[in-house]
Order: sequence, then structure tokens, then C-alpha cells
Amino acid sequence: MSQLFASIITIGDELLIGQTIDTNSAWMAQQLNKAGIWLRRRVAVGDLRSEIWQALDEESRQASVVLITGGLGPTADDITKPLLCDYFGGKMIVNEAALENVKQIAAFFKRTLLERNLKQAEVPDVCTVIQNSRGTAPGMWFEKNGVIFVSMPGVPHEMKAMMTDYVIPQLQQRFTLPAVLHRTLITFGMGESFIAERIQEWEQALPAHIKLAYLPNFGMVRLRLTGNGTDAAALSAELDELFDQLKNYMQDVIVTDRDEELEQVLGRLLQERGKTMSTAESCTGGYIAHRITAIPGASAWYKGSVVSYDDAVKRDVLGVSPQTLETDGAVSEAVVRQMVAGVLKATGTDYALAVSGVMGPDGGSAEKPVGTVWMAAGNAEQIIAQKINLRFDRRRNIEITAMQALNFLRKFVEV
Amino acid sequence: MSQLFASIITIGDELLIGQTIDTNSAWMAQQLNKAGIWLRRRVAVGDLRSEIWQALDEESRQASVVLITGGLGPTADDITKPLLCDYFGGKMIVNEAALENVKQIAAFFKRTLLERNLKQAEVPDVCTVIQNSRGTAPGMWFEKNGVIFVSMPGVPHEMKAMMTDYVIPQLQQRFTLPAVLHRTLITFGMGESFIAERIQEWEQALPAHIKLAYLPNFGMVRLRLTGNGTDAAALSAELDELFDQLKNYMQDVIVTDRDEELEQVLGRLLQERGKTMSTAESCTGGYIAHRITAIPGASAWYKGSVVSYDDAVKRDVLGVSPQTLETDGAVSEAVVRQMVAGVLKATGTDYALAVSGVMGPDGGSAEKPVGTVWMAAGNAEQIIAQKINLRFDRRRNIEITAMQALNFLRKFVEV
Repeated sequence: MSQLFASIITIGDELLIGQTIDTNSAWMAQQLNKAGIWLRRRVAVGDLRSEIWQALDEESRQASVVLITGGLGPTADDITKPLLCDYFGGKMIVNEAALENVKQIAAFFKRTLLERNLKQAEVPDVCTVIQNSRGTAPGMWFEKNGVIFVSMPGVPHEMKAMMTDYVIPQLQQRFTLPAVLHRTLITFGMGESFIAERIQEWEQALPAHIKLAYLPNFGMVRLRLTGNGTDAAALSAELDELFDQLKNYMQDVIVTDRDEELEQVLGRLLQERGKTMSTAESCTGGYIAHRITAIPGASAWYKGSVVSYDDAVKRDVLGVSPQTLETDGAVSEAVVRQMVAGVLKATGTDYALAVSGVMGPDGGSAEKPVGTVWMAAGNAEQIIAQKINLRFDRRRNIEITAMQALNFLRKFVEV
Repeated sequence: MSQLFASIITIGDELLIGQTIDTNSAWMAQQLNKAGIWLRRRVAVGDLRSEIWQALDEESRQASVVLITGGLGPTADDITKPLLCDYFGGKMIVNEAALENVKQIAAFFKRTLLERNLKQAEVPDVCTVIQNSRGTAPGMWFEKNGVIFVSMPGVPHEMKAMMTDYVIPQLQQRFTLPAVLHRTLITFGMGESFIAERIQEWEQALPAHIKLAYLPNFGMVRLRLTGNGTDAAALSAELDELFDQLKNYMQDVIVTDRDEELEQVLGRLLQERGKTMSTAESCTGGYIAHRITAIPGASAWYKGSVVSYDDAVKRDVLGVSPQTLETDGAVSEAVVRQMVAGVLKATGTDYALAVSGVMGPDGGSAEKPVGTVWMAAGNAEQIIAQKINLRFDRRRNIEITAMQALNFLRKFVEV
């Protein structure tokens, strides 16, 4: 068994002028990694024949599997398919199964079939066709000089179905792949330098086939141990032992020892205790609620939010005192405490979380500059509050506030 | 004046195992594009000396400017700085300004200075140092064989400040750059094939220096005309004329002729009319509110949301009739109509938008399968409702529902 190397090529001018963010590559990277395939590089090129051709040449020199996404749509700016036909020396033919698929999709949407839709069923005769269960553009599997090339549409959910249903299983069948295992520890409230300092000796003593990565984000640091080897069971036992040591070192700042989001940790805690929660959001404007409700099944423990962006909503829906709003201002300890009390009452939940702050770029004052945030967490017995000061842009201020607040409630629930 | 080509190298194992999504590259691409610099490729490589070295070699053969992000943190997995020192043949020295910066940041956060923090002030003596106004790792500007290499931290807001304050202005000073201009038209409700069919002849007649791109997303298609030339004024006039023609073709499905988000269009419409709005969200769980409140100044027209994830919140906060919830179910026309009426009353806004649906993966039934969504929009005079059926995964169902709902209200307000 030898290491199998892969490379990803994403095609599209929109990637090079920054009009779209490439989320496909990250997802594909995860799938490859889980399957024990080593992704060496990711390359993005524009809709330019010479650039795509060069990327195919270069990447196939370094990898045995080249995954390609994008450039397969029905419009004139998509040039990939004819190019692949030339590159692999074939000619275009109609694939009957793909044509049937195009016709069925048109029928489902009660749409007329255009010439350019029918063209999507044409493929080079030198590829194995991967049927598209979620769209009209078929995928294509080529082989040349011992290298596998797979071309897939850039539409994320179409590509994902092809990867999961066909590409990964095929690769697993063709190659004997090594085990790649991870252990992830999530910490909150300690900078990466300080963590590195604390575990320096332990980290230096790690064996060569096990690596530690620091992934800081939003005040959290994700510590990821990655090991690879031929004996999955032995590797797993080895990782478990090292992971236990790491947990011992970091005990005081651990959020979770699973690879999960903060809101999932909170949800698990609440479910274990048979409790529910709600939120009252001013400055985060629904972002906390959105993060929570992105989790399937969150309705078991999350009941809702009042996004009181305007003071009138704080007053009329949450029952915050007009006097407090007047004297203390919307960004104040007294107001977030009343928001918690108000949303507990309105929604009838066991716990509640509230935030109010100045996210910028405008709205700051000398007393409460941009980045000033008050948050409160509580239940029927007790409400606690804290102030934080941030110094980022609006988007990041919103994200960090949400994470800090979720962690604030997590600690309150955990006690 | 000749075309200036750039390439981006992002460094980090986390990119190759898919643990982080690369948003830096898209942002950098936008900035380069605005400045008239042509980004040819983006490459992501792992924390491996040989891979980084090879990428530096390869990318500098194809581009005159190579922008590098990542790998500059204070922990052991960051190997980029010593590598750059070797690559450019220098030796490490302490940069006094960078050291002063590290000390000041430690003082601000009342943190002890660690040896590894001090090390961040060390740079190769063959670079020009770019001070980091938002963090401890300095940027580095190298030149070799006529190619400029800029190494920046991977932390997005640190990198952004360096790009905006130093890198782009320096490049503009050094090179005479061509004008690159865009015009963007956003349409809703017509597939890209049908658009392409309608404008086929017009598109084929576009001059070589002007390109049209189709960027479909969430039921919208963004049509982007990009032109480049030496005479910015002439190019602008030429683009304007073509853009007017395009608008004429697409008149019936235009959302906006500016490069903006749907929620910005809605906000502009409301502000022009001096009106306000609120939302009542069930299945989107705060995502609509989040999109709206991500816009600076949204508080002028957006007052808040009731995220009624639980039926009890629909009943108690929005006043939805328990009987209707019982007979029609939470995902029904009657309920979304009552949600609009309820949130109009609770928040006192002129307009309101409500959604309720089944986002999956669970919760579907034969009568209301996953992807069934009811939405309503209204004001004091009238409430309208519509049903849509989606067939994606949870995340995408939430996103598409939000966009469809925002567009539903936009059309209602626009009339």
C-alpha cells in the first residue's frame, strides 16, 4: 500500500475576480481526507483554455487523482467539456442516460427543452459518464498515463452527490488506502501561543506519523491530532492515549473533545438535562438563532428568538423598561438583564441568552465605542452578565459576539 | 502599459483537509481585480517545505506578483518564515518596529510576553517589513528576478489591512495598470439556459475585450459584463451602452442593475418610501434577520424579528391561533398569514415577511414533504402568500427560502 495523492482543480473566472467563495474545495478535501487520500494541492484557474490545459498537465504530474469542478454549465462561458475532449483525444457523442436525465428534469420543472440543454447530454467518447442525480450536467471519469481525472459540475450539491455516490467508492475499490484518523479538542479563552507554550515538550515528543495543528477562530482554538498508518486499530489506540494526555494538559479550557460546533455542545448539555433555551438578540441580529437552527433537531431544545433590533421591540415584545433604555442606553448591563428576563417570560424556556452591542462601522460613542458588547445569560433563579470589547469589522464583530455569548451560556448551563 | 499578472498562494494543512474554507483568496481576488491586476491562478498547499518551495518557483514563472497568506503564526506548525528566509537567501534579524508592535499588543491584552511572541518580530533581512496594525505577525515584501513576493498572515482582518493600506497602493505606484470595469445585472426567476437563449445573438456580437459571465445562485442569476482597456472613460461609455441593451433584454426579471445583495435592494426600496419592516421566521430560524442586519445601517428600516421556532412562540408572541395550528399545521398558508399579522402588530412596522417550512433532513410527511415552504408578505392593507417546494439539503433549503422570501417581499413593496 502506498500513499495516494490527489489534486483539485477548480475552474471559473468568478474565482479569480473573487465573485464567489470556493466552498467546494474544502468539502472535497474533507471527503478525500476521510478516505485516506492525501490532497497535495488545490488550484483555481479561469475559463481560459491554455490555463486549464496547463493545470491538467501540471497537477497530473504530482497526483494520481485529479478532481476537477466547474465549467460544465449550459452557457457560452463554459469551455471545459470540449477542452477535456481534446485533452483526452476523443470525440463528442450523446450519452443516452444523460439525455434521459435532462429530459426528466425539464419535465419536472415543466420547462421547454432548449438546444443548449440537449447539448449537456453530449460527452467525450473516451470517458465513463457519472450520472447527475441533481442536475443536468453529467460528470466524466477519464484515465490517462495511469492518472484518474474526474470532471464534475461546480454546483455544490450536484458535485457532492457525485463524490459521495460514485467517486469516493470507486477510489476505495481501486486502491488500498491507509487509515487517516483525527482527534479534535476545542478550547476557549486561551491564545494559541499560550497553549503552545504549555504543551511544548509533549508536542515535540510526538511521533513522526502524528501531527498537531492549531486552528484558532473566534476566541476558540481547535487542536487537531492527525495520525496515519496501515493498522487502523493500533493507530486509533495510539491517538487515544496521546489525546488523553492533551486533554489533561488543557483541562481548564476545554469546550469539547469532539469535532463539533459550540452550539452543538450547548444543545447536547441542554438535552442531557432535559432543558430548553431561547435568545434575545439585538446587535447579532438573528445570527445566534441562525447558528443554532442550522443544527438538525435543534427544535428539541431551542424554542426561538426575539431579534429586538429596534428599542421599541425591546420595550414592546421583551418588556424592557423605557426608563432603563433612556437612562442606561440599549447597550448596557441593565438592558441585557431585562432582555433575558423578558424572553424567558415570552417563550417559557428554562434558559435564555441576550446580547446588545455596537457592531460598527457607525453607532459608536466615546463612552461606548464600536465593539462594546453586553451579554447576559440566565434562568428563573439567576441572571449573569458580562461586557466584552471587540476591535474588528462588522461581520467579525457579529461572529465573535455570537460565539462568546454561546460560550457564556454554555458555562452557565454546565455548572 | 502591459497586463500585470498575479498569483495567490495560500499555505496551511487545514486547507487540504478541508477544516477551513478559504475566504481570503476571494477577497484578495476582488482587490486585485479592482486595481486592474489580472489574477491568473490561486494555489493552496500544505505546511510542507518542499510543496511551498515548489509553489514559489512555479507561480513566479507565471506571474509578476505572488501574494502569499498563512503559515506565519507563533506555533510549531508554521514553517513559512524560515523557508522564505532561505528561499530569498537572507538571515533572520529582529525588526524593531514589529517588536514594538508585539509588545504593545501584549500590553493591551495585559498578557505576558512569551519567547515565541518575541520571535514573531524576527524577519529575514532581505525583505521590506509591512507592519501589522491588527496583530503580531509582520508582513514581508520580497523581490527576486523581477518578481514581487508578499507574505501576509492568514488571519483575514490582519491580511485585509495590509492589502488595503500597503500592498495595493504600492503596486499601483509601481505599475501603470489598465482599467478593468464591471457592470452587474441581477435577475430572479429565469434559468441561465433561458437567459443565454434570449441574448444569444447579442452575446456573440460582444467585442473581444468585453466578456459576459453567468453566476447563478439561489434562483437568481448575476450577469456580469467585464471590460478592460487603456482608456477608462471610453471603456466605461462602451460598457454603459452594452449594459443598457442587456437591461432591455432582461427587463421582466431584473432585481437590480447594481452589484448588491437582495436585502440591500429591499432596504433601498423601503428607505425611498420611508417605510419599515420586520420578519417572523420559523424554518429559516433567524437567517433572514441575520442577512438583513449584516448590512450597516439596516436599523433605519428593519426593526426586528420573532424567530418562532416552536409553536408555543407562534401562539404566545405572534398571536397565531392555537386552533389554526391544530387544524392546518405550522407549515400552512393560514399560519404564515397570521404570523405576518402578528409581527406587524408586535413590532409596529409598515411591512412584514413570514416563513414556515420543513427544512429537513427530518420532519417531512406525505402531505408536507421536506422542502415544503409557505411564505407570506404584507402590510396593514393586504397579505399575500405563496408555497414553494425545494429539494436540497438543510443548509441550502434555508438559504434558498430566505432569498425567495426576500424577493417575494421586494416585489410586494415595489408595486
